[in-house]
Amino acid sequence: MPLKLRVIVVDRTKSPFLKEGELFYIDRLNKYTRVEWIEVKPAMIKKGRPADEVLAAEGQAIARRLMPRDYLVALDRLGHQYDSVGLADWLDKLSMDHGGWISFVIGGPLGLSKGLLKSAEKVLSLTRLTLTHEMCRLIFLEQIYRAFTIMKGEKYHK
Amino acid sequence: MPLKLRVIVVDRTKSPFLKEGELFYIDRLNKYTRVEWIEVKPAMIKKGRPADEVLAAEGQAIARRLMPRDYLVALDRLGHQYDSVGLADWLDKLSMDHGGWISFVIGGPLGLSKGLLKSAEKVLSLTRLTLTHEMCRLIFLEQIYRAFTIMKGEKYHK
Repeated sequence: MPLKLRVIVVDRTKSPFLKEGELFYIDRLNKYTRVEWIEVKPAMIKKGRPADEVLAAEGQAIARRLMPRDYLVALDRLGHQYDSVGLADWLDKLSMDHGGWISFVIGGPLGLSKGLLKSAEKVLSLTRLTLTHEMCRLIFLEQIYRAFTIMKGEKYHK
Repeated sequence: MPLKLRVIVVDRTKSPFLKEGELFYIDRLNKYTRVEWIEVKPAMIKKGRPADEVLAAEGQAIARRLMPRDYLVALDRLGHQYDSVGLADWLDKLSMDHGGWISFVIGGPLGLSKGLLKSAEKVLSLTRLTLTHEMCRLIFLEQIYRAFTIMKGEKYHK
């Protein structure tokens, strides 16, 4: 069953050039698969409010947008690192073993709650570097697009 | 001695949003340090021309822009991976041990020649994923900017 991608992120992208990049790759991805892009409201970060509380609130907002049969993938700096071919192989296998909707979750400035990371079937890392969450979205989309071109045996990937 | 950064890349950035992102971070970096951005002409990639030949030609174009006392850092997917704090620590140490100009070299679509990688004092990896060379520039600049904010103890890095 072909994969359908739900991408749940916290807050809208404010950087104009990163927003443009996002739309560029979502548009390209739409040639291969259905992409549902969901932006949940960020929790207020204010002085004295513990990070765990912010993350728990955002985790609840994210959980409300997940469907019961989604295969949940969380993005975290310390998750599993693939190279691009490995990522494509993993997605390919997932489309055979699971199919349907894969939900990718990308946190806000503070990342994702421990609860959400624990409940994910897979935790993916794009790099060991700390990225802004907006930059993370762009790299994620470019890599998923690249993975589809690899799966289809197309020329984009070198 | 404070570091000065020479960044030598192959070809100009064609993607409008990535170009915008580059300028955004070069501008921010200029508050901390001098950044010299050099774009060398790409070698022609045509059918039947061996990749090694392309890379050798681009390596020569890059070498012509290096100064004898530069500390040479090459970017390659398989190089040394730091996290963002590790990258800042390394740059900080470099400013004490070496100072002056650090030349960062980012290849074109085919990467960098083996000769250039061998002659580099350090080979850095941003991620194990294959990136477009234009995307690589943006992530590189954001991380170097982040490293300066970490060295200065500023708020940007979380």
